Amino acid sequence: MISKKMRKSLGGSSVIRAMFEEGQKLSALYGEDNVYDFSLGNPNVEPPAGIKKAIQAILDTEDPTMVHGYMNNSGYEDVREAIAGDINRKYGLDLSSRNIVMCVGAGGGLSVVFKTILDPEDEVITFAPFFGAYRGYIADNGANLVAVPTHLGTFEPDLKALESAVTPKTKAVIINNPNNPTGAVYREPVIKGIAEVLAKKSEELGTDIYIVSDDPYREIIYEDIKIPYMLNYYKNTFIVYSYSKSLSLAGERIGYVAIPNEIAEFEDVAQCLGMATRDIGYTNAPSLFQRVIARCLNESVDVGIYKKNRDLLYNHLAGLGFECAKPEGAFYLFVKALIPDDKAFVEAAKKHNILVVPGSFFGCPGYFRIAYCTSYSKIEKSLDAWRALAKDFK
Amino acid sequence: MISKKMRKSLGGSSVIRAMFEEGQKLSALYGEDNVYDFSLGNPNVEPPAGIKKAIQAILDTEDPTMVHGYMNNSGYEDVREAIAGDINRKYGLDLSSRNIVMCVGAGGGLSVVFKTILDPEDEVITFAPFFGAYRGYIADNGANLVAVPTHLGTFEPDLKALESAVTPKTKAVIINNPNNPTGAVYREPVIKGIAEVLAKKSEELGTDIYIVSDDPYREIIYEDIKIPYMLNYYKNTFIVYSYSKSLSLAGERIGYVAIPNEIAEFEDVAQCLGMATRDIGYTNAPSLFQRVIARCLNESVDVGIYKKNRDLLYNHLAGLGFECAKPEGAFYLFVKALIPDDKAFVEAAKKHNILVVPGSFFGCPGYFRIAYCTSYSKIEKSLDAWRALAKDFK
Repeated sequence: MISKKMRKSLGGSSVIRAMFEEGQKLSALYGEDNVYDFSLGNPNVEPPAGIKKAIQAILDTEDPTMVHGYMNNSGYEDVREAIAGDINRKYGLDLSSRNIVMCVGAGGGLSVVFKTILDPEDEVITFAPFFGAYRGYIADNGANLVAVPTHLGTFEPDLKALESAVTPKTKAVIINNPNNPTGAVYREPVIKGIAEVLAKKSEELGTDIYIVSDDPYREIIYEDIKIPYMLNYYKNTFIVYSYSKSLSLAGERIGYVAIPNEIAEFEDVAQCLGMATRDIGYTNAPSLFQRVIARCLNESVDVGIYKKNRDLLYNHLAGLGFECAKPEGAFYLFVKALIPDDKAFVEAAKKHNILVVPGSFFGCPGYFRIAYCTSYSKIEKSLDAWRALAKDFK
Repeated sequence: MISKKMRKSLGGSSVIRAMFEEGQKLSALYGEDNVYDFSLGNPNVEPPAGIKKAIQAILDTEDPTMVHGYMNNSGYEDVREAIAGDINRKYGLDLSSRNIVMCVGAGGGLSVVFKTILDPEDEVITFAPFFGAYRGYIADNGANLVAVPTHLGTFEPDLKALESAVTPKTKAVIINNPNNPTGAVYREPVIKGIAEVLAKKSEELGTDIYIVSDDPYREIIYEDIKIPYMLNYYKNTFIVYSYSKSLSLAGERIGYVAIPNEIAEFEDVAQCLGMATRDIGYTNAPSLFQRVIARCLNESVDVGIYKKNRDLLYNHLAGLGFECAKPEGAFYLFVKALIPDDKAFVEAAKKHNILVVPGSFFGCPGYFRIAYCTSYSKIEKSLDAWRALAKDFK
C-alpha cells in the first residue's frame, strides 16, 4: 500500500543512515569504544559556548509566545535582516531580509529550491563524487540528476565535461564547496570557469540555468583560503546554507536560502520559496534557533580540532599506502579502495569494526568516504584496525 | 523559470498566510492596538513554564554535541519511547519507539505520510470545511483531494456522502478532530461510523484505505468530552500529532507520526516514513525540542484562556445575529457570512480593521473563520468593530 516511488527506493535507502544505525547496533554489541564509526557527518566538536548563552538570554528577555510561535513562512524579519547584514559584511553585497528565506537546514533549503524551479524531466547537473542525498531531493520533483566527472586526484570539476553535459533540459547545476565527500575546495578560477560555461550555454540555448551553491562547509577550512562567494560571480544563484557544521547544530535543522536581487523573476522566486516551505509541510524554520542564529553570527566552532583529526588520519592512511587527496575543507577523506569493488571493501572494513561509506553512494565507485568528525582518541584507537585492514589486501 | 506547478499556485497562495502578512502591514500603519487580526492559528497563550525549565535542564546536564546533533531520521530512541509510553497510558495501547516517527510539526508529519502512501492520481477524502493546507500536501504528490460535505450546523461528517465518495482510487481519509476551522469535536459514534464505512468499502473494493488522523487540537477542548483515539478503532491509521497548540510551540515545528503494530506492511511503512523525512529534506525533527518534549509530556497550556475568549466572542456575535455553531474544541469560530460572497464579506471586514479568513479557503464558501487565539483585551476592543460590521449589512 506504500507508494510506487517509495517502494522502488526502499532497497536503495540511504547507505549513510543505514550505517549510522548499524554503528549503533555494533556499539551496543561490542561497546562503543571498540567500534570505529566514520559513517556520518555528525559534528563531534561542541557548539560554541555562545549558543547556550544566546538561548538563555532569549528565554530570559524575549516574549515566549513570540519566540516559540509562528512567523512569516520565510522566517523572522529581524533574523533575516541580521543574516543579510552578515553576508554583506563578509562578501561586499547589498542584501536585505527580502533576499533571505530561513530553512530547515541545508537539506530543507535544497528541497525548497528544487520545488521552486524543477519540472518533471528537467535535468540537474552535479559533479561526481557528490552528496548522495541530492538524488532524493531531485527525484522527489520528477527531475533527473546528471553526474559530470571531476578530475580524479584533485576532484576539481571537469569544465569541458560540464559544457558537453548542458542540454536544453538543464535547469540547474549544484556546487558543493567545500565538497562532501572529497574535502576539495574550489578556488576562484574554478568558480569563474563554471560561471562562464553556464553563461555561454544559457546564451547559446536561450535558457536560464541556475547555480545552486550548497555551502554548509564554508567555514570548515584548514588552509588560508578565500572561498569565492557564488553571488559575486553568477546572478541566477541560490545560496543554500546551514549552521549544522559551522556551529555544530546539525540536529537543529537551521539554515537559509539566499538569492541576489538580480536573479531572474526575483519577486516570484522569493514568493515561491516561501510557499514551498509550506507545501513541503515544514511551514517555517524552527523558531528558537532562528533567534539564536541572529545572536551568534560571529560565533564559530574550533576548526583546529578537525584539522588535528585530518592530519592524524591522513598521514596514517598515506603511510599504509592508501591513495587519497589531502582535503582542504569539510571533514571527510575520500580514499581509493584497495580493490575495485568499493562495497566489498566497505564490508571487509566492517570486520575490523570500521564503518565507512562506499564511493558508489557518491556516484564514484572504487572509493570510500571517511567522516573524521569524531574524537581524536577514537581515531587513535582505530589506527591498528586500519593497519590490519590494509594488511588484508596486501 | 520557476516550475509550472509553482507558477500555477502562485495566485492561490495561502490566504491565511497572506492575511498574516497583511495584518503585520496594517499594524505598522495603524498601530497594533487598532488592528483585529483573527487570521492565523498562532497560539497567544504562553507555553507552560516547564518548557523553559526543561530547556535549561537539558543545557545544564546533557551532552551538547548529542543535544544539537543528528540522530536517526525517525528521532531519538529515548524520546520516541517516552512518547509511546505516554500514548499507552492515555489510550490503553502497547506502542514502543518503533511505532513513532518524530516530525517537523503536524505539517511535516502529513507531508511524510502522504509521500509514503500516495501515487499520482490517488484520491484523498476529507470533510469540508477542511484545513486548506491539505491541498498543497496532497497536490505535491500528484494526488487529488476529494471534499465530502459535513452536516451544516453541527459540521459532523456526512457518512452517507463519505460512502458514495469512496472509489477504487481512494487511498486515505483525513480526519481533523477537534476540527480546524469549525471547532467541532467528533465523538465515538462518528468515529466508529467512519471506521465502519471504510472497513466495509475496503472489503467491497479489495483495497486498503488509510485513515490519517490529524490531531494537533486534541488537548484544546472546552467541555468534559472524551475524544476517541483513532488507533483504537481502525488498524490502517496514521496519527499525526504536533505540540504546536497543546504546548504553544507552533514555531518550533515539533510533532510525530504514530502507527499501530497492526497497520498493513508495518516494517515497510515505518522505514518509508523515515526515508521520507530525508527526501523532503528536513532530515529529522529539531533535536533540542525532541528532548524538551520527552521532559514535558505532562505539561499543558491553560485552555481556560481560550475558553474565555470563545465565550466572549461567540456570545457577542450571536447577539449581533451571526449564525455560528458553538465550538467545543480548537480555537476557531466558523461563522456564516452576512452575504453569500464570503470573499467580499472578508474584504468588508477589513474596512473595520478585522482580519478573518474566507470559508472558500476551507472548501466551504459563504462562511468565514475567526481564530480567537488572541488576547482577551484585543477581543474586547474588537467588539465595536464587529457591531459596525454587522450594521453595514443590516
